[in-house]
Amino acid sequence: MKGQPDVKDLTMDTGVQQMLEKAREEGIETAFDRAAKMTQCGFGSQGVCCRLCLEGPCRIAPKGKGPQRGVCGADADTIVARNLYQHVMQGTSSHVEHAREIVHALIETIEGHAPYQIQGTDKLKCLAQGLGIDIEGKEINQLVKEVTAKALEDFQKQHGTLNWLKLKSHEKNFQNWEALNLLPENAHAEIAKSLARTVMGADSDPANLLMGTVKLSLVDGFAGLHMSTDLQDVMFGTPRAVKAQYRLGVIKKDMVNIAVHGHVPLLAEKVVEWAGKLEGEAPKVGAQGINIVGVCCSGNELLMRKGVNVATNYASQEMPIITGALDAMVVDIQCIMPGLQQVAQCYHTELITTIPYSKISGATHIEFSTEKADEAAREIVMRAISNFTKRDPNKISIPEEITEAYAGFSVEQIVEALSAVNKSDPLKPLVDSIASGSILGAVAIVGCTNPRRKQDKYNVELVMELIKNNVLVVATGCSAHSLGKFGLLSPDGLKYCGEGLRGVLTAVGQANGLPALPPALHMGSCVDNSRIADLLSALAGYLNVGVKDLPVAGSCPETHHPKALAIGTYFLASGVDVHVGVNPQVTGSELVTNVLTAAKEDFPITTDALFGGKIIYEEDSVKAAELIIERIKMKRKALGI
Amino acid sequence: MKGQPDVKDLTMDTGVQQMLEKAREEGIETAFDRAAKMTQCGFGSQGVCCRLCLEGPCRIAPKGKGPQRGVCGADADTIVARNLYQHVMQGTSSHVEHAREIVHALIETIEGHAPYQIQGTDKLKCLAQGLGIDIEGKEINQLVKEVTAKALEDFQKQHGTLNWLKLKSHEKNFQNWEALNLLPENAHAEIAKSLARTVMGADSDPANLLMGTVKLSLVDGFAGLHMSTDLQDVMFGTPRAVKAQYRLGVIKKDMVNIAVHGHVPLLAEKVVEWAGKLEGEAPKVGAQGINIVGVCCSGNELLMRKGVNVATNYASQEMPIITGALDAMVVDIQCIMPGLQQVAQCYHTELITTIPYSKISGATHIEFSTEKADEAAREIVMRAISNFTKRDPNKISIPEEITEAYAGFSVEQIVEALSAVNKSDPLKPLVDSIASGSILGAVAIVGCTNPRRKQDKYNVELVMELIKNNVLVVATGCSAHSLGKFGLLSPDGLKYCGEGLRGVLTAVGQANGLPALPPALHMGSCVDNSRIADLLSALAGYLNVGVKDLPVAGSCPETHHPKALAIGTYFLASGVDVHVGVNPQVTGSELVTNVLTAAKEDFPITTDALFGGKIIYEEDSVKAAELIIERIKMKRKALGI
Repeated sequence: MKGQPDVKDLTMDTGVQQMLEKAREEGIETAFDRAAKMTQCGFGSQGVCCRLCLEGPCRIAPKGKGPQRGVCGADADTIVARNLYQHVMQGTSSHVEHAREIVHALIETIEGHAPYQIQGTDKLKCLAQGLGIDIEGKEINQLVKEVTAKALEDFQKQHGTLNWLKLKSHEKNFQNWEALNLLPENAHAEIAKSLARTVMGADSDPANLLMGTVKLSLVDGFAGLHMSTDLQDVMFGTPRAVKAQYRLGVIKKDMVNIAVHGHVPLLAEKVVEWAGKLEGEAPKVGAQGINIVGVCCSGNELLMRKGVNVATNYASQEMPIITGALDAMVVDIQCIMPGLQQVAQCYHTELITTIPYSKISGATHIEFSTEKADEAAREIVMRAISNFTKRDPNKISIPEEITEAYAGFSVEQIVEALSAVNKSDPLKPLVDSIASGSILGAVAIVGCTNPRRKQDKYNVELVMELIKNNVLVVATGCSAHSLGKFGLLSPDGLKYCGEGLRGVLTAVGQANGLPALPPALHMGSCVDNSRIADLLSALAGYLNVGVKDLPVAGSCPETHHPKALAIGTYFLASGVDVHVGVNPQVTGSELVTNVLTAAKEDFPITTDALFGGKIIYEEDSVKAAELIIERIKMKRKALGI
Repeated sequence: MKGQPDVKDLTMDTGVQQMLEKAREEGIETAFDRAAKMTQCGFGSQGVCCRLCLEGPCRIAPKGKGPQRGVCGADADTIVARNLYQHVMQGTSSHVEHAREIVHALIETIEGHAPYQIQGTDKLKCLAQGLGIDIEGKEINQLVKEVTAKALEDFQKQHGTLNWLKLKSHEKNFQNWEALNLLPENAHAEIAKSLARTVMGADSDPANLLMGTVKLSLVDGFAGLHMSTDLQDVMFGTPRAVKAQYRLGVIKKDMVNIAVHGHVPLLAEKVVEWAGKLEGEAPKVGAQGINIVGVCCSGNELLMRKGVNVATNYASQEMPIITGALDAMVVDIQCIMPGLQQVAQCYHTELITTIPYSKISGATHIEFSTEKADEAAREIVMRAISNFTKRDPNKISIPEEITEAYAGFSVEQIVEALSAVNKSDPLKPLVDSIASGSILGAVAIVGCTNPRRKQDKYNVELVMELIKNNVLVVATGCSAHSLGKFGLLSPDGLKYCGEGLRGVLTAVGQANGLPALPPALHMGSCVDNSRIADLLSALAGYLNVGVKDLPVAGSCPETHHPKALAIGTYFLASGVDVHVGVNPQVTGSELVTNVLTAAKEDFPITTDALFGGKIIYEEDSVKAAELIIERIKMKRKALGI
């Protein structure tokens, strides 16, 4: 391969760099290499390519030099708005199906068809009450039955709006969405309607399409993120602070290593359970034990609830295989690179797909269903154990670095930590710190890493800049992993914080028997962005203001998946500014760009005016931090603090 | 505009040619002009462009010269299969939402909230019985209530399969789909799951994706096409043979002209009703009356049930405006060119959008809902009347040509016509004619016209070739309009038929008091392809064979909309060969091409082997006819006839 970039320019993670060098030596192509070689289409990058019908493909020429309308007459504004809408649809459908999997798993569990236990009974009761269910004297299974019935209604009802939206939305947001006619009916119907709305010859009014996009993002938020998190907490318990390790060094040469990768914890939890049950089998093949490591959001789910170590995040998902010491990688859905099998087949690693509608050519498929969860998990672990003997010792090279990290900061955990400072009024210390300026504001770092951008660099740089300026950081998804790898999920990272923030984190940490809280609080997986929304609602409620009034923002500096666009739009609609560090493929439309970014002050309609949140598109993390802080200061000023 | 093609090369329709010349003289751009100017992207045309995430856009280089995998590792097979799946999703969601609109309209009607009447009581009873509802002694409204409850289940149930699939599928097909695990759960869930399945990092196994595509196409067929047709027949009655006129000459200089364009007859029927009620208003503005003309499938719906004349079909939908004599064009959903407003604003024509999720910038929006159907239709007609006075006489030029056509050939009508030959066993004369070879087989000409292809030419040429070879033709959609324009929906077209076919059509026609049946039987709109499926099921049932054994095929020579890909896949899955005359954007994958076309005889898996139907992709209509006839002869041989 010629003209390859230096691995140091591809990732900040030295372990990943080491594996990239190894891959090159062994002639193995990785996503980073493919990203470097892929010439990007200018039309697609700007969102002005339309492939919706067989009159096309059509492309709108930039700067007016060439066709300004597709064959049907759609212009750049229509095409860009439709493409963005379809991205948000893809993200929404992913999260919504995630939630529905959990609903069915709970139903099967209480019906005795699935081998899980209901571990989050407090959360269950809390949800039931919120949903208007009388909980008095009811057995747990009865409550699950009634709560899941309410959840299923959100996929079935033909009138009214989502139960989960009524349950979880901030009152002022609800009123705004209702006034704007944006309340969704049911999750599946909204997805189908959205798709039908964006086909050739349907909606072509870009402003109308953008409003549809926002409406669908509420489905993502409530019937996707919130419902997934809430019901996972019911099934597996609400996360509490845990300590774990990060980076490729968590893969152990003498152990059977299994990486779990994907999103829905139903599989991942069972693999951990069976790794424990089958620990005694490992010595039979000469291994010292079974070591589960996490990748992406399955990694997050296990980290949050079980303290399972995390090997790496999205862009470098091929690297655990390249260590030569990974005996199986088991995957479920979303963010699974098809290229994994290309890498796996060069090693002894068995790539195992598990979901019938998410296969990879050439990989082993072991069908996972909640009913047969034990059988599937057992087989997966047994295969990994048996694969241990197939390793090629010459191909084994595991980077040594390991970092320590704290995770598990659910809202419940955060409130509990604050209670150690003020038991009767736990949010008060946080709000007081914001009011006094010790904490300037809060930013959620969310999203992914992307092989097109130097991995981890933008996530880390942005956080360093923010915490230096006393901005409290919470994090989820693969972005949280970036922070974990570089010590920002550990009290060690406190040295990068401004004085005010450091003081608060130290005080709260010490009240809880720790040296300090870490500068970034890991709140979970991508669906756990719902936890961030809950925290914002709680703060806004405490202060009796709207979410849009809070000095906060969200940021996805290295996103790659359209799920991030769905989540981002949901936060936008909730009144939160959202920074995007990767080209969101909307720049081909001045209208769409202006609506989202409020770049032109006199533009007739913007998300900022409608909802109080706007998109900040800035690829440079330092500049992005400045822009975010500027908006935070503006919102502080409006609050009179 | 430089280097414009001769209008004679753009369309066979001389009236459309005349309007294209007029548009050019007036400096107005049409879809034909835009198609001629649009350079098509080779990647998109072959289906190897992926824009699913922000790592891309990625493009697979043809013939191995450049990147063979996207950044994530997806190869051409995965990308092509996913793109095809997404096209089928777009088509399916369109039809499914169409069906659901009708379900709700029926519910609102019996609840007294919508001003419609249940006109198809026989169909209603027949459906109710088929759905297992006891009809004895029940009022019509009660039956509607129970039938629509069964329909709504098809959008809500979490287990089992579609009621409409059980109601309408041929037994052998049902068994085959069940064995292949292809029975869909509910329409909306399948759409959402399909979308979630095709996002970045989900399903990447092309064979698995193709099976998902087939499964979704069953949703299109049963919860889209069949349900729409069946319930429209319940609401508005089952079509019976009608006589009407075709071509732009149906627009009348001295009348208030209103074009209805779109798909769901709820609006179109009301506009016709109110045009009748407000006829007396026309003379007040100097008009002789109110003239409704149809475009696309709204045109088909009105033609089939009311004998309303048809102005033109998809590709030339701008032309009625260019006559300068169209006072309003009212549209609902699908196949509505956004460019219409660009043309309308050059004339006095008011383009009126009606559906909240289908707007066009600059057009008038009069919100249509079933509850307020009368108010909306009244306002639309009144606006058209008032617009009559705004005409610019210098801009009026209406092509004179008119052709006569018969339509309204529902299955019920066809059976009734055959009953005149054999009352006790109506299908016998048809089957006997096929067995004797008087009729070689039957082909359905369906789909669209496409500004990229010379309009009407391919539809008409194919039919001429087929009927010359004694192939019976049925037709729907904009393809049927092509045939109507050129006399093939009239007994006049009999002269182009081979002797055997001519004899049968003459005999059946004369038994019904007509000189003959037309060579092509117009069976309705695009959703009415369900009627063709019903006819095939009836024939297969009569012969006690599978649908796949019948000497029949489907063909869309000039398609443009992904709805056609959904419909085509449904017919493929039902065992019917489907000819496509337009690049279906799958040629970038040898695997996908082989699965669909069975081009390589030794290919491990093909739709032909699994279902008995394959894709014939051939742009030349004469060659396509040869290929179709070859397969028909093969199927005849297998039947021993």
